[in-house]
Amino acid sequence: MDGLMQSYPLTLPPVLDRAERMYADRQLVTATATGVERTTYGEWAGLVRRLGSAFESLGLSERARIGTFAWNTARHLALYWAAPCSGRVLHTLNIRLFPEQLTFVVNHAEDEVIFVDRSLLPLLWPLVPTFATVRHIVVMDDGAPAEIPDDPRIVHFADLLAGAAPMRYRIEDENLAAAMCYTSGTTGNPKGVLYSHRSLYLHSLSIMTEQVMAIRQSDVVLPIVPMFHANAWGLAQAPVMSGAALVLPGPRMQPGPLAELIESERVTLAAGVPTIWMAALPMLEGRDLSSLRLIVCGGSAVPTALSEAYRAKLGLPITQAWGMTETSPLGSMNNLPPELAGRPEEELAEIRSRQGYPPVGVDVRIVEPDTTDELPWDDEVTGELQVRGPWIASAYYRGDGAEQFTADGWLRTGDVAAVDRSGSIRLVDRTKDLIKTGGEWISSVDLENHLMAHPAVAEAAVIGVAHPKWQERPLACVVLAAGATATKEELIEFLTPRVAKWWLPDDVVFIDEVPKTSVGKFSKKDLRTRFAGYTLPTG
Amino acid sequence: MDGLMQSYPLTLPPVLDRAERMYADRQLVTATATGVERTTYGEWAGLVRRLGSAFESLGLSERARIGTFAWNTARHLALYWAAPCSGRVLHTLNIRLFPEQLTFVVNHAEDEVIFVDRSLLPLLWPLVPTFATVRHIVVMDDGAPAEIPDDPRIVHFADLLAGAAPMRYRIEDENLAAAMCYTSGTTGNPKGVLYSHRSLYLHSLSIMTEQVMAIRQSDVVLPIVPMFHANAWGLAQAPVMSGAALVLPGPRMQPGPLAELIESERVTLAAGVPTIWMAALPMLEGRDLSSLRLIVCGGSAVPTALSEAYRAKLGLPITQAWGMTETSPLGSMNNLPPELAGRPEEELAEIRSRQGYPPVGVDVRIVEPDTTDELPWDDEVTGELQVRGPWIASAYYRGDGAEQFTADGWLRTGDVAAVDRSGSIRLVDRTKDLIKTGGEWISSVDLENHLMAHPAVAEAAVIGVAHPKWQERPLACVVLAAGATATKEELIEFLTPRVAKWWLPDDVVFIDEVPKTSVGKFSKKDLRTRFAGYTLPTG
Repeated sequence: MDGLMQSYPLTLPPVLDRAERMYADRQLVTATATGVERTTYGEWAGLVRRLGSAFESLGLSERARIGTFAWNTARHLALYWAAPCSGRVLHTLNIRLFPEQLTFVVNHAEDEVIFVDRSLLPLLWPLVPTFATVRHIVVMDDGAPAEIPDDPRIVHFADLLAGAAPMRYRIEDENLAAAMCYTSGTTGNPKGVLYSHRSLYLHSLSIMTEQVMAIRQSDVVLPIVPMFHANAWGLAQAPVMSGAALVLPGPRMQPGPLAELIESERVTLAAGVPTIWMAALPMLEGRDLSSLRLIVCGGSAVPTALSEAYRAKLGLPITQAWGMTETSPLGSMNNLPPELAGRPEEELAEIRSRQGYPPVGVDVRIVEPDTTDELPWDDEVTGELQVRGPWIASAYYRGDGAEQFTADGWLRTGDVAAVDRSGSIRLVDRTKDLIKTGGEWISSVDLENHLMAHPAVAEAAVIGVAHPKWQERPLACVVLAAGATATKEELIEFLTPRVAKWWLPDDVVFIDEVPKTSVGKFSKKDLRTRFAGYTLPTG
Repeated sequence: MDGLMQSYPLTLPPVLDRAERMYADRQLVTATATGVERTTYGEWAGLVRRLGSAFESLGLSERARIGTFAWNTARHLALYWAAPCSGRVLHTLNIRLFPEQLTFVVNHAEDEVIFVDRSLLPLLWPLVPTFATVRHIVVMDDGAPAEIPDDPRIVHFADLLAGAAPMRYRIEDENLAAAMCYTSGTTGNPKGVLYSHRSLYLHSLSIMTEQVMAIRQSDVVLPIVPMFHANAWGLAQAPVMSGAALVLPGPRMQPGPLAELIESERVTLAAGVPTIWMAALPMLEGRDLSSLRLIVCGGSAVPTALSEAYRAKLGLPITQAWGMTETSPLGSMNNLPPELAGRPEEELAEIRSRQGYPPVGVDVRIVEPDTTDELPWDDEVTGELQVRGPWIASAYYRGDGAEQFTADGWLRTGDVAAVDRSGSIRLVDRTKDLIKTGGEWISSVDLENHLMAHPAVAEAAVIGVAHPKWQERPLACVVLAAGATATKEELIEFLTPRVAKWWLPDDVVFIDEVPKTSVGKFSKKDLRTRFAGYTLPTG
């Protein structure tokens, strides 16, 4: 016996229609090399509609993958909507991928066209001969002086749009593919995650609840997270759905310009990875940030010292989110429950260091690795974090990486976590970054967190290196803050009261910088390679 | 090309699982004749699970309709979840239905069991012989002294639950029927609306966004709207989904006890029809209502004078919502957009008198009656309001009332409305309550709104009565406030500067009360019958 409710598919076109009418005057601001460009949802929706005709004029197939190689801009946002609304698939390309990875993902996805910002063309163009299926490179002129080759594959965005008629869109099947994003691939080749209209719709609604970011019409949202990173954390869809204004930083992704934008555009919500918040803090001090209500940080664990510095200096701690490309990406958000109001700041700082609560729609379990035996939520026992829900991947494109899904349909996140009885997640480490020593595990993340609380330490990454007796022992790789000094002995002494004695790193090496992946995370793989033969001191 | 996201159905059981674990300690408070009963989501979820076994022990069929005839209580809330989670269908019976209507809906739905509060048993029991399919009457003892008949059909709730084992629930199909509610039927027989798991899930998520009520974990929600009225406005589901505390007024639905509850339980959000807010205002004055953040009012248009009185006296205006049983019921909510901040209160009062903005998921159009020609959103042109979306009915149970759905799949609401360019709905009248005079329309609602702003007027209903020359002319039926006096001439004079001259009622009659429908709305049908032969003064 079915309900008698309308079979109204959850797709993006009616959301576009609605924003175009109801939020016609809301602002979309894009920073450029020389200033800012302003448009409105009304005008922008017109661009989204004309892109549909432009895709036709390019001869793209009905379900074409449409690549983008672009900064966060209103034009990029228009592609985010035009591709799926026209029945095609947006494929955001990470501009920081290594060339061979970029070639791999473009060919794996079989992109037919790539839309590229003129300022990024010099990065992309040399690779075009390696792209098997790309027939057009559409250049979006952002005023950069980069040379545009005289080549039949080159199309100018302005020419393409000139005379393109606005299209009405309609999608009947909510499960149709809407967008794809490849995982950064710390092991093996990048793997494609394929979002559907339904998953993006539900993910956006979730982001609009207080369980996630409570994005609302009065918000002015600054996605610092690149739009090519993990579905832009949903910030390319939820603001359009809720009528929030957007401030898009374009190529101005440096801490100084970002801090200026936050102040000048009265940003209420800004979201980015820890490294950007680390670098931005000195630039933010002394500004009028009274508009800011939420600083979202994800991508890597947020050092407690960083969040506390924000609270102390700006009056607003960082709110931590957890997710992956495979989870659309919002898997949890650390909004503190009301019963914690009034607790001492020290206690709250510790609670803020957690990854927080899964919103409704994300089922969570921790399991004994390589089993489906669910472990208790007592905040003590740790196990692999697995998730399930309508915006969680069921598979990778073309069947890659099948081992990342359990037989009973959950995604294996590769994260090791404990969960407390109210459902708050505390990540301990990545499965593969745990340091196995004498049959016990040491969390590299915990050690890093403590090290980065030392005033002389800018960044710290801890890896396991081979040890004749203990199998593995921790090695701390430390980047000192500019002008600061510290010795190994000082840092070990600093750690001593904070962790178990057998967790203390066997050695500390000082390095110039921690190598990063294409999405800005610590690349421990690179560190492990670099220190593979490292001999730990004995005794 | 489908997305590769999990096919995770949107159903209620995982929401229950989540609330049980993550919100185990949140409070559920039920007012009783003698005080309040407190439970938690954790304990309550146990009751929901044991009810599943109880249904089995009663021998209910797999898709049984389970009637409830009950106040707003935690037990009623448990039935709201146990029926759908066990694959059955909750059927809330309106305790204010006329006996023949009650018999009709119970037999039409083929209820197998009715759960009834002991205090309401005297109302229900005499009708039991007319119920064709009801095999059990389960009495929920609320301490009332009502006699419980010695009859094999009677089952005591406590006995039924004793020893019932908790059940794990799982529903595979999100389109399965979850609940049904009959429309109050101002014309013809009541018609059954059948909600699905999917529609309730999405409706709840919508309620959790700022576009509707932004219900959140820190809320303490008081549903004054009866749980048998239009799916309890979603307030039986959204708080469970968001972890908000609930305060359920039980049989204490009078203005005094409600005002006490708001203060003593630190209610943040309360929702009810205009008549209750009218009656409650004097009881609320002078109390500490600092916890209240949102007063939701729906069911009928909110007189501007009432909302303004709340703003003036309590510092919080009423927020108007619009919906119908057929729309789950949230169709629009009048949350003012940020650009209106700082406007003069007089202007805001007028804007607050609108029905407001449809949230994402509710498509709206106004059409020329009896066509599908969409009319412009200019706030001038009026037409029949039609809606579409995933929580809007596609049909009535057993195919009744097919004329209320258009051939292209929209629900005809029977409301006449204008929409402004930002999508804000302004109801003008019910299609059938418009007064047709000399080929033009007069809005009865507008006249009533103005009349009720007069200090001597408690309630006013305006109907059309036959007129030899003009076809129909307005007659105002007025209930004076206690102790107040006013003459026809005074009221007409009061209206004169406020409406077009040809709108002025031809006569004013003073009546003791406006007849109400079973859900507390003005019953103009009854007034029209009463004044059918009324002779309007001439000249």
